[in-house]
Amino acid sequence: MFRKILYPTDFSDCAVKALEYVKKLKEAGTEEVVIVHVMDVRGIATMTTGVAGAGETTVVYEPEVQEIMRANIEKKLEELKTEIEAVGLKVSVKAVEGTPFREILKIAADEDVSLIALGSHGKSNIMEKLLGSVSEKVIRGSKRPVLVVKRDPI
Amino acid sequence: MFRKILYPTDFSDCAVKALEYVKKLKEAGTEEVVIVHVMDVRGIATMTTGVAGAGETTVVYEPEVQEIMRANIEKKLEELKTEIEAVGLKVSVKAVEGTPFREILKIAADEDVSLIALGSHGKSNIMEKLLGSVSEKVIRGSKRPVLVVKRDPI
Repeated sequence: MFRKILYPTDFSDCAVKALEYVKKLKEAGTEEVVIVHVMDVRGIATMTTGVAGAGETTVVYEPEVQEIMRANIEKKLEELKTEIEAVGLKVSVKAVEGTPFREILKIAADEDVSLIALGSHGKSNIMEKLLGSVSEKVIRGSKRPVLVVKRDPI
Repeated sequence: MFRKILYPTDFSDCAVKALEYVKKLKEAGTEEVVIVHVMDVRGIATMTTGVAGAGETTVVYEPEVQEIMRANIEKKLEELKTEIEAVGLKVSVKAVEGTPFREILKIAADEDVSLIALGSHGKSNIMEKLLGSVSEKVIRGSKRPVLVVKRDPI
């Protein structure tokens, strides 16, 4: 029921909180964790082409800087993998580019996970109020159970 | 982390699915379950006063019928309590009237639960698309972790 967990992370505080729950679920039968990090294509497009939307503040990253950012993400993912393996869980890592909720749902299906465990920062900006946050879109789109952990769970 | 679970139920198939996960969480430390059933005040008002909104089909229940419905709910809640106690969990029952997501969040705070586990039917009608489903509103409003289980989890 909790055998294989998809754990999407953007390395935020709330994703870190969610990881505590993932580790604890080992006691309820979790054997395997798939860590997913999605680089938002919209951000990447902006970085690559420097085409800004109306009123957006755009930072155009040099290819060398992008390279460093990618290497940094891979390093963080490896550290996470080691941390989760340390509690006795099997871990695989997926670093992909795309729209976060779409990629998360796609990998959840491809990997046939039992549960998606994700952090949610618990407040919405105006775009999220209009379109829904990543966690809301994952919950709406997923047939699988979703555990949503807020940044400051009680 | 999973010590005390709030389990809201409307006795639907998806609530039944969510209960399987609640029971399984005993292995990860769950000791106590608070079952909550919220009778939607909007429904009750319609039943009591017979005032229909534009275009609504309204069934006005006689007080005797309402009495039977309440007794039926209490019977179902007692059966649920017995079922959950059978797996070795401490159980309390709350049957309240109000707006479901508000009552669920209020009881979650009053009872200081570790997690809210609820079923979600996984499709929205037009009102829910506009206003959000009960589960969406609970997730938005809760500081506590929420486990959302769809009717047909994989």
